[in-house]
Amino acid sequence: MAKTTRRLEVASPVPADIDIANSVEPLHISQIADDLNLAPQHYDLYGKYKAKVLLSVLDELQGSGDGYYVVVGGITPTPLGEGKSTTTVGLCQALGAFLDKKVVTCLRQPSQGPTFGIKGGAAGGGYSQVIPMDEFNLHLTGDIHAITAANNLLAAAIDTRIFHESTQSDKALLNRLCPPNKEGQRSFSEIMFRRLKKLGISKTKPEELTPEEVKKFARLDIDPDSVTWRRVMDVNDRFLRKITIGQGPEEKGMVRETGFDISVASEIMAVLALTTSLSDMRERLGKMVIGNSKSGDPITADDLGVGGALTVLMKDAINPTLMQTLEGTPVLVHAGPFANIAHGNSSIVADKIALRLVGPGGFVVTEAGFGADIGTEKFMNIKCRYSGLNPQCAIIVATIRALKMHGGGPEVVAGKPLDRAYVTENVPLVEAGCINLARHISNTKAYGVNVVVAVNKFSTDSDAELNAVKAAALSAGAFDAVICTHHAHGGKGAVDLGVAVQKACENVSQPLKFLYPLNVSIKEKIEAIAKSYGASGVEYSEQAEKQIEMYSKQGFSNLPICMAKTQYSFSHTPSQKGAPSGFVLPIRDVRASIGAGFIYPLVGTMSTMPGLPTRPCFYDIDLDTATGRVIGLS
Amino acid sequence: MAKTTRRLEVASPVPADIDIANSVEPLHISQIADDLNLAPQHYDLYGKYKAKVLLSVLDELQGSGDGYYVVVGGITPTPLGEGKSTTTVGLCQALGAFLDKKVVTCLRQPSQGPTFGIKGGAAGGGYSQVIPMDEFNLHLTGDIHAITAANNLLAAAIDTRIFHESTQSDKALLNRLCPPNKEGQRSFSEIMFRRLKKLGISKTKPEELTPEEVKKFARLDIDPDSVTWRRVMDVNDRFLRKITIGQGPEEKGMVRETGFDISVASEIMAVLALTTSLSDMRERLGKMVIGNSKSGDPITADDLGVGGALTVLMKDAINPTLMQTLEGTPVLVHAGPFANIAHGNSSIVADKIALRLVGPGGFVVTEAGFGADIGTEKFMNIKCRYSGLNPQCAIIVATIRALKMHGGGPEVVAGKPLDRAYVTENVPLVEAGCINLARHISNTKAYGVNVVVAVNKFSTDSDAELNAVKAAALSAGAFDAVICTHHAHGGKGAVDLGVAVQKACENVSQPLKFLYPLNVSIKEKIEAIAKSYGASGVEYSEQAEKQIEMYSKQGFSNLPICMAKTQYSFSHTPSQKGAPSGFVLPIRDVRASIGAGFIYPLVGTMSTMPGLPTRPCFYDIDLDTATGRVIGLS
Repeated sequence: MAKTTRRLEVASPVPADIDIANSVEPLHISQIADDLNLAPQHYDLYGKYKAKVLLSVLDELQGSGDGYYVVVGGITPTPLGEGKSTTTVGLCQALGAFLDKKVVTCLRQPSQGPTFGIKGGAAGGGYSQVIPMDEFNLHLTGDIHAITAANNLLAAAIDTRIFHESTQSDKALLNRLCPPNKEGQRSFSEIMFRRLKKLGISKTKPEELTPEEVKKFARLDIDPDSVTWRRVMDVNDRFLRKITIGQGPEEKGMVRETGFDISVASEIMAVLALTTSLSDMRERLGKMVIGNSKSGDPITADDLGVGGALTVLMKDAINPTLMQTLEGTPVLVHAGPFANIAHGNSSIVADKIALRLVGPGGFVVTEAGFGADIGTEKFMNIKCRYSGLNPQCAIIVATIRALKMHGGGPEVVAGKPLDRAYVTENVPLVEAGCINLARHISNTKAYGVNVVVAVNKFSTDSDAELNAVKAAALSAGAFDAVICTHHAHGGKGAVDLGVAVQKACENVSQPLKFLYPLNVSIKEKIEAIAKSYGASGVEYSEQAEKQIEMYSKQGFSNLPICMAKTQYSFSHTPSQKGAPSGFVLPIRDVRASIGAGFIYPLVGTMSTMPGLPTRPCFYDIDLDTATGRVIGLS
Repeated sequence: MAKTTRRLEVASPVPADIDIANSVEPLHISQIADDLNLAPQHYDLYGKYKAKVLLSVLDELQGSGDGYYVVVGGITPTPLGEGKSTTTVGLCQALGAFLDKKVVTCLRQPSQGPTFGIKGGAAGGGYSQVIPMDEFNLHLTGDIHAITAANNLLAAAIDTRIFHESTQSDKALLNRLCPPNKEGQRSFSEIMFRRLKKLGISKTKPEELTPEEVKKFARLDIDPDSVTWRRVMDVNDRFLRKITIGQGPEEKGMVRETGFDISVASEIMAVLALTTSLSDMRERLGKMVIGNSKSGDPITADDLGVGGALTVLMKDAINPTLMQTLEGTPVLVHAGPFANIAHGNSSIVADKIALRLVGPGGFVVTEAGFGADIGTEKFMNIKCRYSGLNPQCAIIVATIRALKMHGGGPEVVAGKPLDRAYVTENVPLVEAGCINLARHISNTKAYGVNVVVAVNKFSTDSDAELNAVKAAALSAGAFDAVICTHHAHGGKGAVDLGVAVQKACENVSQPLKFLYPLNVSIKEKIEAIAKSYGASGVEYSEQAEKQIEMYSKQGFSNLPICMAKTQYSFSHTPSQKGAPSGFVLPIRDVRASIGAGFIYPLVGTMSTMPGLPTRPCFYDIDLDTATGRVIGLS
């Protein structure tokens, strides 16, 4: 057993998450770091319980090999969630604190906004949690704040540029962009050479440009209607979903309709999650496309001169944050992109650092957002494609509750009492629902990994029901299927899962097989994914057709695809449970995150800014000013 | 000499600020902390060069006495600034590294937004700077990000509450606000008792309320037109100055005109600067007024149920950030409220901690924003009134350049070459301009402190000019007047200033005298301040009269006054240099920051959201991805 891990004393019934979290005194994070053989120069402390692990550690550990790479997905969930994060944490507590393995949990950073709205935190649950829970759910080490700042600097740069271009001649623009130095000499700044290169202009001095070149260089000529870049805020502020800006008298009537998304929906979050190094991040941020010129050319952050500044704002955010589980095993928290309009996976750099830190024979367990149809699919086809990393094992988390729903059980609604069907034994209902699990298993197996089913056991589940799931999983091709009680028992409740995962990792030899190659058309890629959902075909709206044509023309057709689809069904219709097939998947629109590196077709409408209910959970949240402790966070 | 300080090797001519900053390897911040006798449990590291000093240190040092308290103000400045921050830093380098004194510099945290616009950083200049300069100017330890998050959570709570109230009956509102627990029991949350108390309702259970009480409790009935709370962002985004929100279909036509300010203009920033403890901050945040009910009652953050959550978001921000000067003396960076719509001074808690840490015989030097007519006045009448702290010495920074301007020299415009008058000797012009200095001296002396004039010497200043200023300062009642060259020479250039300040501190015995008592009318207080400007009277707009009447009726008339006036003249007219008198000061409007604790009359129009120029300085900013170093920041 690693020296920092500790055993939990568990109570029954399981106390509230916050009470469990507060009952354990976290270890100083330098102890956790030390246990991972991280030297003090490899990390920066942020208080006593958080540290940023510096990317430079990757260079220093270049020679050593990687550990096993495990991804946690789930079956199609109920609105209550089936415990994917909890299973991810519980499994790692088992591997680290009971099976004596080197292990790192890689998790997404949760959005702060929703913490004050309806949902509780995202630190796991019961005896499988990341602590300190308040620091995990609130500012953490400022990465999302950095994203907000960078996203909004770019937004301000866009509108201000349109404004200044509207009142100045080409020559005046050039003169302002390249002001004279003390000796009266004008010059291009470094970032301007990026735009000159893109325009095919190889001149090195402003005065050498022809009037035509001055126009091309200095006038971005952004089409205001084409601007897709929105502002962001890490607050549930529904009144910012659609707004009109520029109504002040100094903005001279240059009004425009736009809106705010929640910060984690920013493309910069997706860039952070998919980047592999500082220099790669610099390039990705610079090539983010914010809209088009009036002649249809994509306009980038570097065209606006701001790619470098964005990188400066993000320079610390690229370092993952080290935290700990209740049992003292290490956790890297890093990036939290949306699972629909983005790929819903934590960062590549955190996984890379973790794999190197645990080394051969060690384990890195990472979670993929939503069900496996979305999360695991994007993990494989987007994240692993960019990282070059090879997973050995994919877990699929299932619950008897969700399987009963897929078998035809009554609707499950958050905030309403569960129907009796979900708390009394009904083996046929479970068996019928396993059709959903089976398709997730076969889809996931197709990537060449071993699939382990983890049944997250509730106290109302019967042995007969649990056995039915195990049998169905094995007959659908799972490497193993294991019953887990980590919510009630911590790592001890996931020891069997840990053993199964170890065997699964040791018994895989084939490399990752992608669902589609990159060098086919956007439509062919969309159709390959639709087929994995069970669709018989794809239907494109006029708008979708137009966008696909534009992105293809702009040279972006060889990017991977990131489907923005509901998580509540394999299909686009949330009420279609089980394993629907034969439907035609409608593509309403197609958008692109060029810097992050994917095209995202919209299947239905995705909300990118949540709201607050009549009684937000902030009513319960306060600070005990005598102790400095946060109360009421859930 | 304290063990951490170091001597600088200075070059001539003085290199660029960034080059000087980069030429010095900062000490690990734990060394700086150690030199202040801070034990590891007294601070949290944020990387290697920043640490948050925990407020709890105040309790532990309760017995020990305070050091001397020095405030740095300035004469009425040119648009180029006269070097107040640089003098503050240089003086501390002299006291700490040359005069063997315990010293702490207390500075405001600069706003991040403008760093990417026109102005350079705010870390001082030349050989008197705070380092690392990029960390000082960018995210620092996240305090401004926390303010942004808290400010905007409150904003979202306001609009959402108006929205939900518009569609629900009183009873439905109550039922939503007090949902049943598992046993079906409804109860008030802690924060609701604050509103019940305010309403004079002493009942403890929701079901005990009469229908009339239900209406009073559950329906805030906010008048949308009265909402003064705006959203904020730490970005120069002029297009957000005036916007229309709520245009999404789900918001059902509940549109409203509002706008964004830059984050440091948030009342929460002023709260942070003026608070004295965690519990005091909790109360101030809760009583911030966001607007009125339709019947004219002030509505607070606690009425909205969000005061506790705001405190949780701000719980780490209350701890000041420890950094260092180029010569290794300690700096506490904390809070940066606007100097017009707020009081423009760094935090009370940082000053309190610093005074305790340096102890008797030590020095705490803090800067007051803008000229002494605004900055020092607010330091005395607002900040010291709330802190109970007693300054001994006030510095007034002057330059030959600014004095020549006050003497009748040509206009000084940022970005344009200086007129010859400013770089060639002209003693009569300087002497004529000393009328401005003289009034600042007599105004400042009236608080009971000793006034030391620090002439920030430029290479073009002649001895005759400098001597003229010294003579004028002494005859106006200054304790001393000293020529300083800290920009060119670091602490060594401010040793004479350090000696003078020490003498000034040792030779003061009277306590602080305020300019006005709190228990007179709002108008009497405004008029006392106007008189100190040289005004013969005050003129109130109809709107100002209305607001004064309302605040008086609401019981807020005994708050101190925070004038929002230009810094470029004693009067409201920026072009009136020297020491104008006999003018009538116009009060356009009167607003209030009830949580922070002041009323702010508007003399003219104050911009609370800067913009970006055609070529923002972000064009020069990038990251050297090989070294991780920021380039192009100025």
